[in-house]
Order: sequence, then structure tokens, then C-alpha cells
Amino acid sequence: MTGSLIFPPGPFADAVAAIGPFDDEAAAAARVRHAQLTKPAGSLGRLEELGCTLAGITRRCPPPIPTRPAVAVFAGDHGVVASGVTPWPQSITALMVSNFVAGGAAINALARQVGARVEVVDVGVAADLDSIAGVQHRNVRRGTADLLLGPAMTTADAHAALDVGASVAAALVADGHDLLVTGEMGIGNTTPSAALIAAFTRTDPEAVTGRGTGIDDVMFAHKAKVVGNAVARASTRTDPVSVLAEVGGLELAALAGFVVAGVAARVPVLVDGVIACAALVTAEALAPGTRRGCIAGHRSPEPGATVALAHLGLEPLIDLQLRLGEGTGACLAVPIVQAAARVLHDMATFDELGMQ
Amino acid sequence: MTGSLIFPPGPFADAVAAIGPFDDEAAAAARVRHAQLTKPAGSLGRLEELGCTLAGITRRCPPPIPTRPAVAVFAGDHGVVASGVTPWPQSITALMVSNFVAGGAAINALARQVGARVEVVDVGVAADLDSIAGVQHRNVRRGTADLLLGPAMTTADAHAALDVGASVAAALVADGHDLLVTGEMGIGNTTPSAALIAAFTRTDPEAVTGRGTGIDDVMFAHKAKVVGNAVARASTRTDPVSVLAEVGGLELAALAGFVVAGVAARVPVLVDGVIACAALVTAEALAPGTRRGCIAGHRSPEPGATVALAHLGLEPLIDLQLRLGEGTGACLAVPIVQAAARVLHDMATFDELGMQ
Repeated sequence: MTGSLIFPPGPFADAVAAIGPFDDEAAAAARVRHAQLTKPAGSLGRLEELGCTLAGITRRCPPPIPTRPAVAVFAGDHGVVASGVTPWPQSITALMVSNFVAGGAAINALARQVGARVEVVDVGVAADLDSIAGVQHRNVRRGTADLLLGPAMTTADAHAALDVGASVAAALVADGHDLLVTGEMGIGNTTPSAALIAAFTRTDPEAVTGRGTGIDDVMFAHKAKVVGNAVARASTRTDPVSVLAEVGGLELAALAGFVVAGVAARVPVLVDGVIACAALVTAEALAPGTRRGCIAGHRSPEPGATVALAHLGLEPLIDLQLRLGEGTGACLAVPIVQAAARVLHDMATFDELGMQ
Repeated sequence: MTGSLIFPPGPFADAVAAIGPFDDEAAAAARVRHAQLTKPAGSLGRLEELGCTLAGITRRCPPPIPTRPAVAVFAGDHGVVASGVTPWPQSITALMVSNFVAGGAAINALARQVGARVEVVDVGVAADLDSIAGVQHRNVRRGTADLLLGPAMTTADAHAALDVGASVAAALVADGHDLLVTGEMGIGNTTPSAALIAAFTRTDPEAVTGRGTGIDDVMFAHKAKVVGNAVARASTRTDPVSVLAEVGGLELAALAGFVVAGVAARVPVLVDGVIACAALVTAEALAPGTRRGCIAGHRSPEPGATVALAHLGLEPLIDLQLRLGEGTGACLAVPIVQAAARVLHDMATFDELGMQ
């Protein structure tokens, strides 16, 4: 599924075309610089690796210190909630969108702490949110169909949602944002996420299905069966957009587009938990190399997240057992990313300190 | 070693007398509030626990969001470097003090990133630093004696260094700092740290001795023997100040005083790596209950740190394989502490969102 794909003209196709290679030379220059700074070589551990990664992504050594982070929170609903995969009613998605624009959700608190803008995008909420101010009204359709019974959406819907995500990233970059953070909201969205991860990593569906934000054993067994059925159907599809349409979600597609466009712009993309990991696995299938422009913010306790991160070769920065989504885990990691860049800017060398 | 101890009058004795209990009611109130906020209960994982801990430490729910963090970097030298436990020359300690006040060290970069003040304190550097501006000149003695051959210092020295640390914390709190971060510099100080951890946790010295900032196998075997000899001698001492004097260090004693005084002032103390853990194990022996006022910033890869943290019942927030010290790991955790408090302030409740 990693051959040369053709996408309809639009922001997503533009982003895929613009993706460049990770800059190994800039990363190597950062490694050399780290060895000259006033500390034992390697003593800043993974912060040093992260600095090298930022240099490779941004093609600069030292990499710029990101000072204008932005979180995009894509909201979408899922027909599969009718099949009983979550104890939460679908209406929570719309309520939480109101909460995001009012500033009262967890992502608002964490974004405020790190000085990040929060951009709320309705890409697929089931309710009519047109009257809510402060939301980007980009609804592709009012929620997906139930993926237990058939395709979650058409490939045209998937392409449209990919374009929404890519255009949101491009606009944030054009506005001067230099660190993009993935966020989302969608009651039921751990189910399509598990299905996407199983399909793209070719992993047993049971091994990637988790308990989301809290379900009992009976619902869990049912959810695993729903994911298994969806993945069995997805495995008959031959291209990644079809897989995404068959078992994905609108906010998942938008996130995939968002990540690809951020990476294409060479702005580091900080990836949140299992939903974002599912989107990134999808993005990597659509636009190979995307993962090299991403940083994993935190380790979600959902088993699918660990499978996806291993598949992508990413190691998360934080592991605090967050299982909320919205972008909260990635947001917590923003200062670590900034610190990794700052070390390469601010620290003196042994030479400067008068030592050889 | 946890009986009622008497200390000479001074800032440390005052701090020990002022330590109050952790406020279980405020912590419980934070737990109740977390259940009302617009997220599934428990979904912010360890960030929720941390918020409850901050409420218990500060006796307030919601706990204040710390906005004025300060790192105190205590510098001291160690006679034991003459016995070959580190490849670094002792003169690096003084050079790094110059680097700290010039702003070129790792701790400066990381403190700048989180808006923390850096307070540099010479409590026991072997060189004369009087001409260096920007340093608190509180030198108790010009480095310890070689702890392989006899006591590292007198109990009077240890008391004096405890007082230095306690007075630095009290002054920072009086200046309005609301989050204290432990920092240190001292070539060779993983050796006394290992000895203190082994002595106070009654652990096999070999199990707590690590490779510091990078030593070879031969030096490592020698270091373990040095620690073993020191611990054997320390085990004959009957009170914790004597243990500290026998196998400790001046910056370690100052850190212990600093932590106790911060906790006494009910200001959260964010603890760095293995050196800080050794100081906290010492502080807990001197003033039982101190650990309840502390937050472990990061997990040092030194084996002694893990032994000490288990003994203290603390779980670190970050694990990025940092092994530099200076306060770098704890500094990286500052925004997480701020975020944990902010969530309890900023988030809406389900009631406010119109849901019961």
C-alpha cells in the first residue's frame, strides 16, 4: 500500500507532493554540536536525540526554538456508537465542541499552560454546529455510517476530510505557527482507530483493541468483535484511501491530512495518543516518509498506540497514563520539544568555557 | 534513625520544627473536583494524582498554579575524587559555577525555557570563588575530605551546610517563589550519593553504585569498592547527621536542608536525579515526612535513584534518560506540575456544561 498514489487536486495532494526527505546532514550537525556543549557527551539522553530530530525535520542546526505552538482539535462522530462500543452518548461530541470554544476543556487548560493556540474544527460532527462561534465549520458529513454494517464513508468523503486537515495545517503554518499539535474529539473514535491500526500494521484486531475512556468486559468483548469484522472487510480493499473510508472516521482522515501538510511544511508535528497514532499510520500509508517529520508526544495506555508507535519507529516523550485524547498528552510535551531545541541554541561549548 | 532529633539553633532546626502534615482533606477535595470536571473520571492519569498531591502539599484546593519556579544549584567538591572514582578533574566544578552564572550550562537553558530563576550557591567548592559575581558565597569548607580514608566532614560542617540549604530555600520563598527545584554540581558526587542511599535505605552498596556521567569497567569496580567501604563505616554511626558527615558531601547536605525548608514552607519541591534523591533520603531521615512535600521530577538511570525513589514512595514524572544533574531533569518537569494545578483551576464541570 505504499506505492505511488494519486490524489484529487487540492491541499492534501499538494502536501503529499511537497514532502521532502528528513535532513540527515542537519541531524548529524546537531549531534556534533551536542558533543561540544558543556556537559558529558550524551548526558542529556533523549533530549539530545530530540534536538537532532528537530534539526533533521527543520533542515537547520541549531533547529529554531518553536515559540508559537498550535493544537488543531478535529471533531467527528461515528455511526458505530449505535452498535454499542462506548457508554458515552454521541451528543457529547457536540457538547465538547462548545466546551472547547468556551475554553473549559482539558485541552484548553493544557494549551494555555504552554501558550498554544487551540483551533477547533468540525469536520464530521453529527449535530448542526453552525450557530457555534469560534469553530471552523468544515463539516464533510454529519458523522460516519456504522462501520459494523458497511463502509464508514465514501472515498470522496475521505478525500474531502483529508483536504480539510491539510488546509488547516497549511493555514496555521501560514499564520506563523512553528509547532503543530494533533487534537481530536469524537465519541467512539477508539473503535475506528483500532481498526485502522490493525489494518495498516497487519496486526491481530484483538491485540489493538482497548478500553477507550472506560468500558466493562462485556462491551469490550463486543468492541473487539466489531473491530475484527471491520478489519476483515478492510483487508479486501487495495488502496489506503479505501481502507480509511471503510473503517476510519472523518476526524481521523482530517488528522492524517493535517499531519502530512505539517510535515510537508517542515514544521514539527507533535502527535497525541491512540487516535493520532491511527491517523499517522494512515498518513504514512498515504504519504510514505510522513512519520520522519513527527514526534510522539505521549504513550497512550491503549494497546493500539504501542503497536502503531512501534510500526512507525517512534518513542513517546511522556508516559503519564493519560487516556483522554483531545491533544492533551502531546500538549504536555510541548515544553520538552522547546527545551530540546533551546539546549542547542543557548549552551556554551567547552571551547567557550576555556576547556579543550 | 527516625526518632526525635535535636539540631543546633538555625534555619535548618527552624524548618524541621515547622514541617506540618500532608493535608489529606485538601487532596481528597481535589479528587472530588477531578470527578466533576468535563472528562471521563481518571482520564488524565498521573496528572490527576499530581494535582491531588499539590493540593495536599499546599493545603489548598484547587492548589495555586506555581508561576515563579526557582532552581537552587548547590556546588561542592569531593575529596574522594583523589581516589579515582571519576574521569573528570575536580577543577570542572569551579568552571561550571562560572558557566552557571554566565548562563551557558544546560540548567540555564532549561530554566530559561520554563521561566525559572537560577540561584547558584557555593557551599563547598575546593577553589576560591570569591571573585565570581552572581554566586552566593556560602562556602562551608573547600571540599570534603576523601571518604575512602575517613569522614568526609565533621558534623559541624554538615550542620552548617544544612543551614545554608535551609536559608536559601527560605529566602527564595520569601522572594515569592512558589515552586522550588533542586540542582547541584560537584565532580564525584555520585559516589557520596550512592553511599548515602545505601546507608539510609540499608541496601547493598553494589546495587546502588552507578556509572555517573561515564566511567569504564575498571573504574566502576573500584568505585563500588569505595562506596562499600564508606557504607561499612557509616553503618557504625548512630544518627543521620553523623552518617551524612561520614559519607556525604557539602552540596548534598545543603540540598537536604533546602528540601526540608521548602517542605516546611508548604512550597512544592521538585526533586532532580540521583544526587537529589540521596539528599531527600537523608532529609527524610533527619525530618520524617519531608518526602510527602516533594515531587520526583525525573528518573535518573543511576541505580541508586530507583532504590531511593522506591524507599521514598515517589514515582518520577519524566524518564528521558538524562544523567547530567544540575537540576535539568526536574526543570523539564516544571510545566507538568503547572499543568496539573491548572487543570483543577481552568476546567469546566459537567454541571457548568449543562450535563449531570
